[in-house]
Amino acid sequence: MSLVEALLAGERLALARLLSQVENDTPAGRAGLDALYAHTGRAHLVGITGSPGTGKSSLVNQLALALRRPPEGTPPLRVAIVAVDPSSPFSGGALLGDRVRMRDLSGDPGVFIRSMASRGALGGLARATAAAVQVLDAAGFDMILIETVGAGQSEVDIARLAHTTLVVEAPGLGDDIQAIKAGILEIADILVVNKADLPGADNTERALRMMLELANPGRDPHEHQGWRVPVLRTVAAQAQGIPEVIAAVQQHAQHLRSSGEWHSRDRARLTHELEDRLRSTLAEEFHRRLPAADYEAAVEALLQRQLSPSQAVEKLLRQADPARSPQSGSSNG
Amino acid sequence: MSLVEALLAGERLALARLLSQVENDTPAGRAGLDALYAHTGRAHLVGITGSPGTGKSSLVNQLALALRRPPEGTPPLRVAIVAVDPSSPFSGGALLGDRVRMRDLSGDPGVFIRSMASRGALGGLARATAAAVQVLDAAGFDMILIETVGAGQSEVDIARLAHTTLVVEAPGLGDDIQAIKAGILEIADILVVNKADLPGADNTERALRMMLELANPGRDPHEHQGWRVPVLRTVAAQAQGIPEVIAAVQQHAQHLRSSGEWHSRDRARLTHELEDRLRSTLAEEFHRRLPAADYEAAVEALLQRQLSPSQAVEKLLRQADPARSPQSGSSNG
Repeated sequence: MSLVEALLAGERLALARLLSQVENDTPAGRAGLDALYAHTGRAHLVGITGSPGTGKSSLVNQLALALRRPPEGTPPLRVAIVAVDPSSPFSGGALLGDRVRMRDLSGDPGVFIRSMASRGALGGLARATAAAVQVLDAAGFDMILIETVGAGQSEVDIARLAHTTLVVEAPGLGDDIQAIKAGILEIADILVVNKADLPGADNTERALRMMLELANPGRDPHEHQGWRVPVLRTVAAQAQGIPEVIAAVQQHAQHLRSSGEWHSRDRARLTHELEDRLRSTLAEEFHRRLPAADYEAAVEALLQRQLSPSQAVEKLLRQADPARSPQSGSSNG
Repeated sequence: MSLVEALLAGERLALARLLSQVENDTPAGRAGLDALYAHTGRAHLVGITGSPGTGKSSLVNQLALALRRPPEGTPPLRVAIVAVDPSSPFSGGALLGDRVRMRDLSGDPGVFIRSMASRGALGGLARATAAAVQVLDAAGFDMILIETVGAGQSEVDIARLAHTTLVVEAPGLGDDIQAIKAGILEIADILVVNKADLPGADNTERALRMMLELANPGRDPHEHQGWRVPVLRTVAAQAQGIPEVIAAVQQHAQHLRSSGEWHSRDRARLTHELEDRLRSTLAEEFHRRLPAADYEAAVEALLQRQLSPSQAVEKLLRQADPARSPQSGSSNG
């Protein structure tokens, strides 16, 4: 039985092995992704992001626990957690988080946890995360929680993967955090004030509602493409407020499906992935055609300030294709 | 007189105008960059990064003030500040920071401040920042302080621009900030514990020294390619510890020049920029060749799960070049 067949039959070890192949972008990993792709598109992808210190990991932990032990009459969901740490070249932080999680979630075959650390390459982590999520989707997980540490472009890239994005805040994380929120609110479908038992929780909630208003002047401040962004309070360390968050996540999924947004988010995500892969492939093939000495000469001319970056690009393109007209480059000013 | 000539003659208005052209990637901006490129390569590029709440902006402010008012016998440096906010699609946060700075630095012709907010596009902000830094370099600023909000891949991308990277921490920013530090330490040339008058400063400093040790097991924990990473304390709000930070920044520049690292960091930065521009140009030209209907059909096949992303890329490449062999794609597993 192949790794792909074993994965589709529900074998955990096959899943872990294929994830490693896919993350390391091996030939077997790429073949596996191609074979599994027809089985994707069913999972609800939920991104959880926010600044350090907000307690995101505890919240994700509690969400997974609650999804596994739903109220009577509701079937438990199969849940995967992908913990992404874009700032770390080693995976120490994420691994630590895993060990904490293991206490509550280990041994449950309906839960799968995977840590992803930075791949170094430009966009490498977002690409590896997208691939890992496809594997988990094909493996039949109903909900995939994609947790990211930090705040910045990497968050936005990873939020692009999700159908539903939760942004987590907490009281008392300093002043210039306000600067962060403005951007992060753009991607939030659900806002969570965690550590809501701390002093300052009212202020944090008020600040979030104000930022929502600023981001949507003259409109219902919470409404975004027909969805009213809820602001919820949790104390994840004491499992408080968790059912309300799960209810909001599931309402958001219903909203996405009934409004057609589910389909358009899928399209945006897959178009982005196609474009990203196309660029990598074009660059790889160009480098295979171009003699390495020509590339080195261009870098040297750049360093000596004899050619500007766009002039160097134009020269390399002409070297790879002597028939090229000097005016056809997009980088001519 | 052209915009470029006016800029080289020291006209502030020309500088501001050319920066806008360059940031918006207009034809005039691209032509300006080409013309100015021969004048670049002289400025000391200093990156300042760290989590929200560490007081980075105050620190940058104080560094600029001190560089403008050096001890007797030392000439003041011309200083540019580029404040980058990767998380914000609008520039509210950065603009707020500017207004605070203006009180101390406005009216000084030896200081220039520029805010950069996210460009939306993948890698767009890093590219626009690199271009703005080149313009400021050509305009004759001796030191360019590149300040970034947040922590993540965007920081790493922007740190790649700098010769010297300062990582700023502060006491009491939560627990999982430890996860951030591991990655951020990789890029730090100088560590600063700001807000060192707060309780917990000793703990923060100890934690940083421990992380340095973990990152470099079995070696002098502070040494990195012949440079011993200093851990300095500041209270930027009260201008304490600033001369020591400036001394460390200048010692680092000397170290880079005497060890040959200055040249190799320049090379790494320019190679990265060349590669990035090459990829964008290749993708733009490919899209110009490919009928839009073929691209749409590929996206549709992806959405229907009929083709995987790598199969869709292979199909598009064959459509653009019918002579292509089906085995030549790099994305075949």
